[in-house]
Amino acid sequence: MFDEIFDVIVVGGGHAGAEAAAAAANMGSNTLLVTMNLQNIGQMSCNPAMGGIAKGQIVREIDALGGYSGIVSDKSAIQFKMLNKSKGPAMWSPRTQNDRMRFAETWREMLEATPNLSFYQEMVNGLVVEDGIVKGVKTSLGLTIEAKSVVLTNGTFLNGLIHIGDKNFGGGRAGEPAARGITEQLVELGFDQGRMKTGTPPRVDGRSLDFSKMIVQPGDDVPSRFSYTNTPLLEHQRDCYMTHTSAEVHELLKEGFDRSPMFNGRIQSIGPRYCPSIEDKIDRFKEKDAHQIFVEPEGWNTVEIYVNGFSTSLPEDVQYKALKKVRGFENVKFFRPGYAIEYDYFPPTQLMLSLETKLVEGLFFAGQINGTTGYEEAAAQGLMAGLNAHRKVKEEEAVVLKRHEAYIGVLIDDLITKGTEEPYRMFTSRAEYRTLLRQDNADLRLTRMSNELGLASEERVRRVEEKENRAEQFVQFLKNTSYHPETVNPVLREINSAEVKQSDKLIKVYSRPKMTLAHLERLPEVQEHMKEERYDAEVLEQAEVMVKYAGYIEKEKQNADKLSRLENVRIPDHLDYHSLKSLSYEAREKLSEIRPSSLSQASRVSGVSPADLSVLLVHLGR
Amino acid sequence: MFDEIFDVIVVGGGHAGAEAAAAAANMGSNTLLVTMNLQNIGQMSCNPAMGGIAKGQIVREIDALGGYSGIVSDKSAIQFKMLNKSKGPAMWSPRTQNDRMRFAETWREMLEATPNLSFYQEMVNGLVVEDGIVKGVKTSLGLTIEAKSVVLTNGTFLNGLIHIGDKNFGGGRAGEPAARGITEQLVELGFDQGRMKTGTPPRVDGRSLDFSKMIVQPGDDVPSRFSYTNTPLLEHQRDCYMTHTSAEVHELLKEGFDRSPMFNGRIQSIGPRYCPSIEDKIDRFKEKDAHQIFVEPEGWNTVEIYVNGFSTSLPEDVQYKALKKVRGFENVKFFRPGYAIEYDYFPPTQLMLSLETKLVEGLFFAGQINGTTGYEEAAAQGLMAGLNAHRKVKEEEAVVLKRHEAYIGVLIDDLITKGTEEPYRMFTSRAEYRTLLRQDNADLRLTRMSNELGLASEERVRRVEEKENRAEQFVQFLKNTSYHPETVNPVLREINSAEVKQSDKLIKVYSRPKMTLAHLERLPEVQEHMKEERYDAEVLEQAEVMVKYAGYIEKEKQNADKLSRLENVRIPDHLDYHSLKSLSYEAREKLSEIRPSSLSQASRVSGVSPADLSVLLVHLGR
Ligand SMILES: Cc1cc2nc3c(=O)[nH]c(=O)nc-3n(C[C@H](O)[C@H](O)[C@H](O)COP(=O)(O)OP(=O)(O)OC[C@H]3O[C@@H](n4cnc5c(N)ncnc54)[C@H](O)[C@@H]3O)c2cc1C
Ligand SMILES: Cc1cc2nc3c(=O)[nH]c(=O)nc-3n(C[C@H](O)[C@H](O)[C@H](O)COP(=O)(O)OP(=O)(O)OC[C@H]3O[C@@H](n4cnc5c(N)ncnc54)[C@H](O)[C@@H]3O)c2cc1C
Repeated sequence: MFDEIFDVIVVGGGHAGAEAAAAAANMGSNTLLVTMNLQNIGQMSCNPAMGGIAKGQIVREIDALGGYSGIVSDKSAIQFKMLNKSKGPAMWSPRTQNDRMRFAETWREMLEATPNLSFYQEMVNGLVVEDGIVKGVKTSLGLTIEAKSVVLTNGTFLNGLIHIGDKNFGGGRAGEPAARGITEQLVELGFDQGRMKTGTPPRVDGRSLDFSKMIVQPGDDVPSRFSYTNTPLLEHQRDCYMTHTSAEVHELLKEGFDRSPMFNGRIQSIGPRYCPSIEDKIDRFKEKDAHQIFVEPEGWNTVEIYVNGFSTSLPEDVQYKALKKVRGFENVKFFRPGYAIEYDYFPPTQLMLSLETKLVEGLFFAGQINGTTGYEEAAAQGLMAGLNAHRKVKEEEAVVLKRHEAYIGVLIDDLITKGTEEPYRMFTSRAEYRTLLRQDNADLRLTRMSNELGLASEERVRRVEEKENRAEQFVQFLKNTSYHPETVNPVLREINSAEVKQSDKLIKVYSRPKMTLAHLERLPEVQEHMKEERYDAEVLEQAEVMVKYAGYIEKEKQNADKLSRLENVRIPDHLDYHSLKSLSYEAREKLSEIRPSSLSQASRVSGVSPADLSVLLVHLGR
Repeated sequence: MFDEIFDVIVVGGGHAGAEAAAAAANMGSNTLLVTMNLQNIGQMSCNPAMGGIAKGQIVREIDALGGYSGIVSDKSAIQFKMLNKSKGPAMWSPRTQNDRMRFAETWREMLEATPNLSFYQEMVNGLVVEDGIVKGVKTSLGLTIEAKSVVLTNGTFLNGLIHIGDKNFGGGRAGEPAARGITEQLVELGFDQGRMKTGTPPRVDGRSLDFSKMIVQPGDDVPSRFSYTNTPLLEHQRDCYMTHTSAEVHELLKEGFDRSPMFNGRIQSIGPRYCPSIEDKIDRFKEKDAHQIFVEPEGWNTVEIYVNGFSTSLPEDVQYKALKKVRGFENVKFFRPGYAIEYDYFPPTQLMLSLETKLVEGLFFAGQINGTTGYEEAAAQGLMAGLNAHRKVKEEEAVVLKRHEAYIGVLIDDLITKGTEEPYRMFTSRAEYRTLLRQDNADLRLTRMSNELGLASEERVRRVEEKENRAEQFVQFLKNTSYHPETVNPVLREINSAEVKQSDKLIKVYSRPKMTLAHLERLPEVQEHMKEERYDAEVLEQAEVMVKYAGYIEKEKQNADKLSRLENVRIPDHLDYHSLKSLSYEAREKLSEIRPSSLSQASRVSGVSPADLSVLLVHLGR
C-alpha cells in the first residue's frame, strides 16, 4: 500500500504525536502519521483545558518553537485566564478552558494543511528493527510501512486496562481499544517496561446542576492568548463554577474504599501525585473535610460538564451517591462515571536527550509513554522528538534545549537524567532559572533558534524582532524622559509610595513595586508618548518585566552562564566509566546507565557527588 | 446510579437511536439514550450523504413528522441536489453531501437541547426481561437501568466482524469495539437471528488526487433543503467529482479475488444488492468494463475524500494497486482501506407493525438490527419506534403509517409482512402509490397527524396550512385568469407547442408538459400577480404539481381508497389460522407467523393467494 520509504513515521495522534508529525513535516521530512482512529486526532482524554502553572509556559514555548498546540488552544478556547497575575512574572501562567470537539477538529485541520504530512488509520502492532536500527512499523492488517525513523507516542494505550470499582476491561481510553504488541516487542528487544495509572472524573449533565449554589469562575476581563501569532482574542467567554466536597461526601466515598481498585491492591501502579483521585485526597489529607471541585463546561454548545477535582475509580454507585451530596449536584445526572486506567510506560532513562532510544537507532519515544502526564508535557516532547527524528534522518546533530533555555529543557533533562517512578508533571519549582523561563519571553528565548533549525517561520522571527525593538524603545523612552514631582506625587500618594522632591527619569518611579502601567499612564508625558506609539499589550508587558525585574533576571543569567560552562564540557559518547576507578561505585553504575552528554548533565544524575565530578573534570582534561 | 424508572431507554446513538430518543422525549416520555461513546452520536458510518432516490423522500417524511434528520442534514450540508428533476415529481429526490463531523455535532447539539432526554455512555450487554415483559437494560459495568420500554438500535455492532482480504477482527465500525451479549440473550429468549454484511470504500487524501482529470459534479444552482422549517439555504457549496474504473482496474482487482472474503467463502452472509462492492460489480456485470466512481469530500475543511462506488473488502494492497489506475487517482494516498463488516440482525417478521417485538412486550427494534441498510431507513424506523415506545408506556394504540401515506409505511410494512433475506433498502418502485408519496408533499401528508399525536409542533402545522392556502390561491388565480393569444403564442412557439386561437384560462396552458413556470411568468398578467404575491418557491412547486399531475394523483388516490377499505377490515390479534381449513397450508403457516393486522396486510404476505383472501373475508363476516 505504501511504495515509499518515509523519513519519519509517527505512531499515535495524541498531543505528542500531533506535534511530532507537524514538526517533522514542517522541517521537510516526508512524514506519515499512523493512528488508530483519524477522527480522534488531538483528543483531550481528560480535562478540557490547556496550560496552567508551568504548563502554560510550556505551551508558550511550543508556540515559540513553531508548534501548533498554542494556536489550537487559542482557536478552541472558551475561556482564558492568566493565573498568578498577583505574583512575580515568573509565576504568571496562561490557561484556557477549551471546547473539546473544536480542539480536536482544529488539530485535524492544521495537520491536514501541513505539507509533507500523510495520514493513515490503523493500529500499529510492531516495529521493524534490523541490526539495532529501526526500519519501519507493522500494522494489524499485516502491512509493513518503511521509514528511516519512527516516533512512538502511544499515550495510555499500551495494554491499557480501565478500572471502575471491582470491574476492569481492556481499553486505551473510554470507548477505544487498547494497543497490543508494541510493549511485548520492545521488552524482547531489551527495554525495561513499567506500569503507571491515571484517572478521570465523571462527566455529567449541566442541565441537572444548580449553578446558583456555586461560585462563578469567569475568565479574565481582558483575555490574552497562548500564541505569539495573531490568533484572534476571545470576544466572549463561558463561565466555570466552583463548589466543594464535604465531610458527608467523604464519608459516602469511604464506604466504597474496600471496592476501590486503588486500595484493595488491584491497581499496583503509581498514579500522578499532583492530580490525585478524590479517594487519594481523602486518604492522604485526613484532616481536610472539604476539597475544591471545579465545574467546567466541555464546550461552547454542549451541556456536558467535566467535574474537575473528582477524579475517581470508585464503583459507579459510590461515585453517584457521593457526588449527589456536593452543593449544586443534588440532582446530578451522569453522562459517564469516572475511571482509572493502567498502561505501560518505558522508563525514560533509556533515552538520549534527543528522545532517541539508546537501544534502537532511529526510534524515538514521546509523551505519556515516557512516564509523563499532561497534554503539555506530551506535546513538548512530541515537538522535540519530531524535530530530532528529522535531524537524525538528515544526519544532523540532535537539538537539546538547556535547562535555562526552556521548561522543555528542564522536562527532558529531568526525564532522561533522573528518570521517573511516578507520572511526571511539570512545576515551576523544577526549574532552577524560572525567572528566565517566563511565559512572556518564550518567543525571545526560542524563536530565532527554531527558525535557524528550519521550524519557526520568518514571520515569527519578524514578530520577535518587532516585539524586542518596541519594548526596547519604550524602555529607552522611560530611561530618557523625566517626570515632574507635581504630576507624579499625587499618583505616588495614592499607592502609598514615598513622594519625590525633584525631577528624575521615568524608569525610576516605574521600578517601584506598586507602580503599574496604569499609574504611569496618568503622567502627561507618558500619555502623549503612548498615544503616539500605540504599543501592543505584549510589548508593554515585556517592557514592564524588563524594568521591574532587571535585577533578578541579571542574577539568574549569571548563574545560568556558569552552568553553561559545565554544559560545554562534553563527555564522549562511549566513555568507559568503569575504567575510572576513582569514581564511586554508584557513580560508575549510574553514569554508565544514563550516559550524560555533558558535565552539567552528569552533575544532575542522582548518586553523582561533587567528588565524582572533579574526577570527571580531571579525566576530561579540564 | 439511576434511581428512576425511565419511560423509554434507547440503546445506541446511531441514526435510528437518535431519532428514537428525540421522538420519545418530544412526546413527553422520560427517555434515556445509552450509547457506547457519546462523542459518536449520529456518526455516518459510511458515505457522507443523506437522501437520494426514495431515501430523500424518507428524510422529508421524517422531517414532516417532527424528526431531526432533515434539520441535521440541512445544517451540515456542503452540497444540495434535487435528483431526477427532469422526470415526474414522484421521482424528484433531494440529496445532500454532508460534513461528517458537523453532522454528528449537530445531532449531539439537537439532542442535548431536547427536554426529557438524558444521556449515558456505556455498552449495554443485556436486557432485563420478566414474564415476557422488558423491564430495563444491563450494562457492561453491571448496572441495571430500569425502564418501561426499550428500543434496541445496535446497527452493525452486534458481534460485528470486520474483514479486509484474509484478515478479520472484531469491531462495530473501524476503530470501535463490537457489542456482545445482546444477541446471545435474545436467541435464548427465542428470537431468530441472522447475519448480514455490508461494506465501505477506502478514504483517501484529496491532496493526492488530480481533480482536473475528473468530471466536476457541482450542487444545484439554486439549492433547496430537506426541512420544512426554515433551515438556512446553502450560500456556497463544495463540488464533487466523477471518474471511472477501467478494464485495467478490473483486471488488477480480479488478481485479489482468491483472497477476497466474499469469494473464498469466508463471508457467507448476504450484502446489500444495491450497494454492491466493486468486486461484486465486476463479477456480476462481466460485460461492463467501466463503473462510475463519485469522489466526495468529507466536509468543508477536510482533505479526506470518500470514494463512492469503490466499496471493497479485497486485500488492501489490491485496493491500492487498482485504485491507482483510476483516472485522477494515479498518486492516491490512502487514509484507510475499505472493509466489509458482518453483523447480527433479527428477521423483522418477528415484529409487529409498531416495531414492538412479538416475543417481548415493550421491546422495540429499529434500524440496521432489522435487516435494513441506510441512514434514512434507520432513522425512519427509529422515529416510529420511539413514538410507539412512548405510546406503549402511555397505554395508547400503536401508530402505523399506511403504504399510501408514506414511504415509511411502505418500509415498515415490507419488513414486517415480507421480511428480508438481504439488506433492505428503499426504492420508489417499492411504493404502489408513489405519485402520492412525493417529496414536495410529505408535510401535507403527515404533519397534521403527527401534531395530533403530540410530536410535530403547532408551528409546523401553521406552515403546512399556509403552504396549502397559498398553493390553492395560486391555482385559483390560474383557474380564474385568462391569457391572451397575442402574448402567449410567442412563448408557445418557442417551446414547440401548438398555438392558441382564442383566450382561455391560464391553467389550460400551464397544464401543457413543456410549459414551465418561467415561461408562464412571461405573460404580463402572471408577472403582475407574482410580483404582488411573492410566493415561496415551495408553494409554487406544490401548485405546479397540483396543476400538471392532477390526473395521475386522482387515479392513485382512488386506488389507495380501495386499499384503505381492505385496510379497514381488521383481523383479530389471536385468530387461529390453523382452524381455517379452507386456507391453503402455506397461507396458514405464513399468516400464523406474520399475524397481519388487516386484510390488506394479509394480502401482501407472500404465499397468500386471492382465494385465501376470500376465505378470510368470509370468515371475518364481510
Ligand atoms: C483516563 C485518563 C485520565 C487522565 N488524567 C490526567 C490527569 O488527571 N492529568 C493529566 O495531566 N493528564 C491526564 N491524563 C493524561 C493525558 O491525557 C495525557 O498525558 C496526554 O493525552 C498524553 O498525550 P500522548 O500524546 O502521549 O498520548 P494520548 O493523548 O493518549 O494519545 C495517544 C494516541 O496514540 C494512538 N495510539 C496508541 N497506540 C497506537 C497504536 N498502536 N497504533 C496506532 N495508534 C495508536 C491513540 O489512538 C491516540 O491517538 C489522563 C489520561 C487518561 C486516558
Ligand atoms: C462499514 C459500513 C458500511 C456501510 N455501507 C453502507 C452502504 O454502502 N450503504 C448504506 O446504505 N448503508 C451502509 N452502511 C449502513 C449504515 O451505516 C447504517 O444503515 C446506519 O448507520 C444504520 O443506523 P443504525 O442507527 O441502525 O445503526 P448505527 O449507525 O450502526 O448505530 C449504532 C449505534 O449503536 C451503538 N451501539 C451498538 N451496540 C451498542 C450497545 N450494546 N450498547 C451501547 N451502544 C451500542 C453504537 O455505538 C452506535 O452509536 C454501512 C455501515 C458500515 C458500518
